[in-house]
Amino acid sequence: MFAIRKAKAGKGLEATTVESQTPKAHEVRIKVTHAGVCGTDMHIYQWDDWSQSRIKPPLVLGHEFVGEIVELGSDVKGYEIGQRVSAEGHIVCGVCPLCRTGRSHLCQDTVIIGVDRRGAFCEELIMPATNLWPVNAKISDAHAAIFDPLGNAMHTVMSFPPAGEHVLISGAGAIGLAAVAMAKANGARKVTVVEPNESKRKVAEKLGADVCLDPFSQDVVAETKADKPTLLLEMSGNEKALETGLTALLEGSNVALLGIPPRAINLKLAELVIFKGLTLRGIVGRKMYETWYQVDHFVQNNPEAVDELVTHILPAQDFQKAFDLLEAGEAIKIVLQFAE
Amino acid sequence: MFAIRKAKAGKGLEATTVESQTPKAHEVRIKVTHAGVCGTDMHIYQWDDWSQSRIKPPLVLGHEFVGEIVELGSDVKGYEIGQRVSAEGHIVCGVCPLCRTGRSHLCQDTVIIGVDRRGAFCEELIMPATNLWPVNAKISDAHAAIFDPLGNAMHTVMSFPPAGEHVLISGAGAIGLAAVAMAKANGARKVTVVEPNESKRKVAEKLGADVCLDPFSQDVVAETKADKPTLLLEMSGNEKALETGLTALLEGSNVALLGIPPRAINLKLAELVIFKGLTLRGIVGRKMYETWYQVDHFVQNNPEAVDELVTHILPAQDFQKAFDLLEAGEAIKIVLQFAE
Amino acid sequence: MFAIRKAKAGKGLEATTVESQTPKAHEVRIKVTHAGVCGTDMHIYQWDDWSQSRIKPPLVLGHEFVGEIVELGSDVKGYEIGQRVSAEGHIVCGVCPLCRTGRSHLCQDTVIIGVDRRGAFCEELIMPATNLWPVNAKISDAHAAIFDPLGNAMHTVMSFPPAGEHVLISGAGAIGLAAVAMAKANGARKVTVVEPNESKRKVAEKLGADVCLDPFSQDVVAETKADKPTLLLEMSGNEKALETGLTALLEGSNVALLGIPPRAINLKLAELVIFKGLTLRGIVGRKMYETWYQVDHFVQNNPEAVDELVTHILPAQDFQKAFDLLEAGEAIKIVLQFAE
Amino acid sequence: MFAIRKAKAGKGLEATTVESQTPKAHEVRIKVTHAGVCGTDMHIYQWDDWSQSRIKPPLVLGHEFVGEIVELGSDVKGYEIGQRVSAEGHIVCGVCPLCRTGRSHLCQDTVIIGVDRRGAFCEELIMPATNLWPVNAKISDAHAAIFDPLGNAMHTVMSFPPAGEHVLISGAGAIGLAAVAMAKANGARKVTVVEPNESKRKVAEKLGADVCLDPFSQDVVAETKADKPTLLLEMSGNEKALETGLTALLEGSNVALLGIPPRAINLKLAELVIFKGLTLRGIVGRKMYETWYQVDHFVQNNPEAVDELVTHILPAQDFQKAFDLLEAGEAIKIVLQFAE
Repeated sequence: MFAIRKAKAGKGLEATTVESQTPKAHEVRIKVTHAGVCGTDMHIYQWDDWSQSRIKPPLVLGHEFVGEIVELGSDVKGYEIGQRVSAEGHIVCGVCPLCRTGRSHLCQDTVIIGVDRRGAFCEELIMPATNLWPVNAKISDAHAAIFDPLGNAMHTVMSFPPAGEHVLISGAGAIGLAAVAMAKANGARKVTVVEPNESKRKVAEKLGADVCLDPFSQDVVAETKADKPTLLLEMSGNEKALETGLTALLEGSNVALLGIPPRAINLKLAELVIFKGLTLRGIVGRKMYETWYQVDHFVQNNPEAVDELVTHILPAQDFQKAFDLLEAGEAIKIVLQFAE
Repeated sequence: MFAIRKAKAGKGLEATTVESQTPKAHEVRIKVTHAGVCGTDMHIYQWDDWSQSRIKPPLVLGHEFVGEIVELGSDVKGYEIGQRVSAEGHIVCGVCPLCRTGRSHLCQDTVIIGVDRRGAFCEELIMPATNLWPVNAKISDAHAAIFDPLGNAMHTVMSFPPAGEHVLISGAGAIGLAAVAMAKANGARKVTVVEPNESKRKVAEKLGADVCLDPFSQDVVAETKADKPTLLLEMSGNEKALETGLTALLEGSNVALLGIPPRAINLKLAELVIFKGLTLRGIVGRKMYETWYQVDHFVQNNPEAVDELVTHILPAQDFQKAFDLLEAGEAIKIVLQFAE
Repeated sequence: MFAIRKAKAGKGLEATTVESQTPKAHEVRIKVTHAGVCGTDMHIYQWDDWSQSRIKPPLVLGHEFVGEIVELGSDVKGYEIGQRVSAEGHIVCGVCPLCRTGRSHLCQDTVIIGVDRRGAFCEELIMPATNLWPVNAKISDAHAAIFDPLGNAMHTVMSFPPAGEHVLISGAGAIGLAAVAMAKANGARKVTVVEPNESKRKVAEKLGADVCLDPFSQDVVAETKADKPTLLLEMSGNEKALETGLTALLEGSNVALLGIPPRAINLKLAELVIFKGLTLRGIVGRKMYETWYQVDHFVQNNPEAVDELVTHILPAQDFQKAFDLLEAGEAIKIVLQFAE
Repeated sequence: MFAIRKAKAGKGLEATTVESQTPKAHEVRIKVTHAGVCGTDMHIYQWDDWSQSRIKPPLVLGHEFVGEIVELGSDVKGYEIGQRVSAEGHIVCGVCPLCRTGRSHLCQDTVIIGVDRRGAFCEELIMPATNLWPVNAKISDAHAAIFDPLGNAMHTVMSFPPAGEHVLISGAGAIGLAAVAMAKANGARKVTVVEPNESKRKVAEKLGADVCLDPFSQDVVAETKADKPTLLLEMSGNEKALETGLTALLEGSNVALLGIPPRAINLKLAELVIFKGLTLRGIVGRKMYETWYQVDHFVQNNPEAVDELVTHILPAQDFQKAFDLLEAGEAIKIVLQFAE
């Protein structure tokens, strides 16, 4: 079968051929039709520090996908051959206290497809049945393929109730942009986006942002002073953006942290967190499976917003073009097609 | 009337005489009987950086007290002459969005008695009726005088539901020690205290701590690994203590931040907050007046614990001795007596 | 001054003249410009059982209004002469545990204007400053006059987070209709309305209802079975409507109860509440003042929705016409104009 | 193997012999050592209306147990032969929205052991690995055998944060009595028990109840008026007890409903729920597996309380005696021993 893999240390990926695998009793075999290219795939493609410490080549990448079940393990119930499914790519242990108390997204024994074991950039994929997500017939393949990153955005948006809040989003990459539309759809009374890239600010406006600010030419704190934000979604991982966001917030507000700072940050904890009575929460992955239901409803009700995010659908064989476009900042989200 | 005031810039306080004042329509005049000495009073006594920027001498100090109402303003309802009361020392604006949505402890126009206007180290005090706290007859004067700092501890303890949690408390000063007893009284299944001072660790044990660790001679992370803490109450303001606490916590846990770091800290935000899915909340003052009810119940049900905290009751005239004891680390909490 | 009052027992109201009053230190005097007519006013007009037990004629009615401050009591801060204000009509004690813990809408010593003391159907009104609500310049007088009933709707809508929920609203009177628009504005993914009156269902659709059902000709449980509601807002006070709503809900859902059943109900508690794991909450008044901020944002962002609700603005002298229209079911919400 | 079964319609149970079974890939085979006798078992023994509609004889009863794993299915991970385990007796579908959003205790496709399929009153039992609960070495077999009913009590106690609350418990059967000790252990500031049976009230006192009231000779509302309860745990299923409890509660309080009324109740919804702003929640089973962790901590920290509940440990062959004692009200909780 055709697959896209990291063959060895160093930049780049290669097309290859891999053997089909057999599902265990609790697993299914899936024919992959579409798979999304994620920032994590780009890290592995570029072979950055994180990739060098985590990835053991050769490895088939890909963890965002949609496909069709072609084989059921002997103990699988509730699914059938031919069913269209996506899946949560985090395979968790199921027996630790975090898994057994609704926090399996924090399981310390998580195995991620396309990172720790064979991924979805392949004609077929083996998945535990517990991870499957049945795809509603109203949802297109391209939309179904990116439930995973939409889930990161949704998990962040819903980590504190957004209804009635003035939401400040710092960083308008693919996930920050999704968060704009999701915050509005979930009742934010106002969304302000802070993003240095003008074209991304324009997309943010299309997706419903009420105000877009350029942090390099505008004073975010001054611009929001008359109506202070009450919920910060930090999507940039930038130390300065976090400080600006915390400063701009109304006292007593909430902060969801999704962007990953590349190193330890300097933080005025007393002035910006304690004295302001702020609440900060780190966001990891997606809630299994509250977030998936929320994404499902969002995608069904807002397909035009998702269309703004998926800028390219390419044949899987053209994966190099996908990485080139993403590296050049000329795409938001790219979906690779593996089959009809 | 006798009063203790900061007369001028520089270390020290002086005994003085001040004029009586008249309450406005919404205020009451109180005869102070007992007042607690707070860490804030010590800062002003020592004339540290914070004091120099905030305090305008001459100023009568003191914000923790109990007394008796001796005059009612014309519009005051619900209180009577002779009634024993304590009071919230934060006088808030009442009209800002924070005041009107249950977050007046975060009001940006707060005036604090003994800091921004005449305080309770005086034979009499004027207070708005809204700030009064009627003292239950079962509660001793010494206990009633320190509802304010007990409130800081309680606000921290109750900021996340402690029932069933393994609570890690870093820093066992007066407030940290109060938090030990309060966490146990409110259902913590286990309390672990991290404190370098041996005598404080011993008091913590008396107050119900299950485990006490010395951060200089013991490895807190290793010692708690088999049963990871699930709620951190950071009472030390120490950067290293915070990092240790965050490292020791189970993924998905909560953190209440009360200790004030003297400067910006270096924080491994990705590793210790985001990837662990932690929630951190800055704690300011006391909730008006949820916290006061909680303290009231605690003091009535646990007088022996409060007795452990109040190590000295001194005549108000001996205030210099009080500051000397506290500076020498020979007292936990000292109450000054202004009248019978 | 002109006023509309209940002169004596029995149906009807009369125009009358009353003396001006003087504000106490903590009160203000307001020139009323517009006042809304509420279902409570209709009860008093019709002199039903509840009115006979609660109202002591003669009484000037009215508790929903907007006006202008014309006099400030000596202790009032944060307001000025000439300022446009509405106000919370529930004057609470301020000293009970409910008032002091963010639940003053449940205060057992509440005095309601237009019910327990002189109301807003008058050229002037005295109000405590704590109850005032400053009106944003963007909001019209007619909209500002009905913040009180909009607040009942909003309090109900926000009693459980509506974002992402399928909200079932039973009863589309003025408050139920407002709740339709508010649920959508606050992120409900779907709103289903159950209402027997066809013209009200049509207004519900205009306000954003996704599905409208007639309980007399349609099977609500069957119609919602494929996508079960997850939040019920019971606005009808009808026993059968409640039973239907509880039956239709997904297990584990929430229920906000605003409609008042006129007598004790028969409830299948085991089958419809316990075994389904539902949560039911009784809703009273408006949160002081969280709800007012939420209404403020809603009215500013959705003026066209509020326009659908205010079907008539009449001169105050035409109050009889207002009650006739409401009694005939030919109006949703009527605002009386007392001054330019 | 020896087993206790309902052989046919009508009162009573019989000793019998059944064949051993083989676990599927995701299941384990367990050698049962101890099993608790539940109220549900008594219903089936007595063959009441509910039993007649639900139970299909012949059926081996029992759903509370502890035992030892003797065989692992091929796909089972995280468990080993010889491990001591209890288990959640509700086998849920795992694929419905309730199961996938942390509410599997409300799954509508639940199969209960000892009710819908072969139960634990047998020398061996087959269970899905997902349902297993590893038993801590510090916990005795008799205590481990009754995690299921302790879980019902704990789920109820923790359904609203009990810390600092005055908890009113109506009904002091085995579960109500467990709730007394659990409420205290989780920070309730006061526990008041309403129970007509004097001997049960005495056990409630031993378990920490601050006040015990006899509803037939004492006025519960009057007795609690000076310090109104703020959390009601309704364990009796009695209509009058519920009305009394709702009446006694402070406005704005919470109510957890575990007791099952045998028929529809008459409820003053307006007066006792809506106008009081109460929140009522129906409680079903145990949260999977938050409740199990809470029970685990409770049992380890309070073994003497659990000892008060387990009044008898009998050889399994003496099951008739167990049912006789329970029917006579001469036991609280009985554990049957099936093996050493």
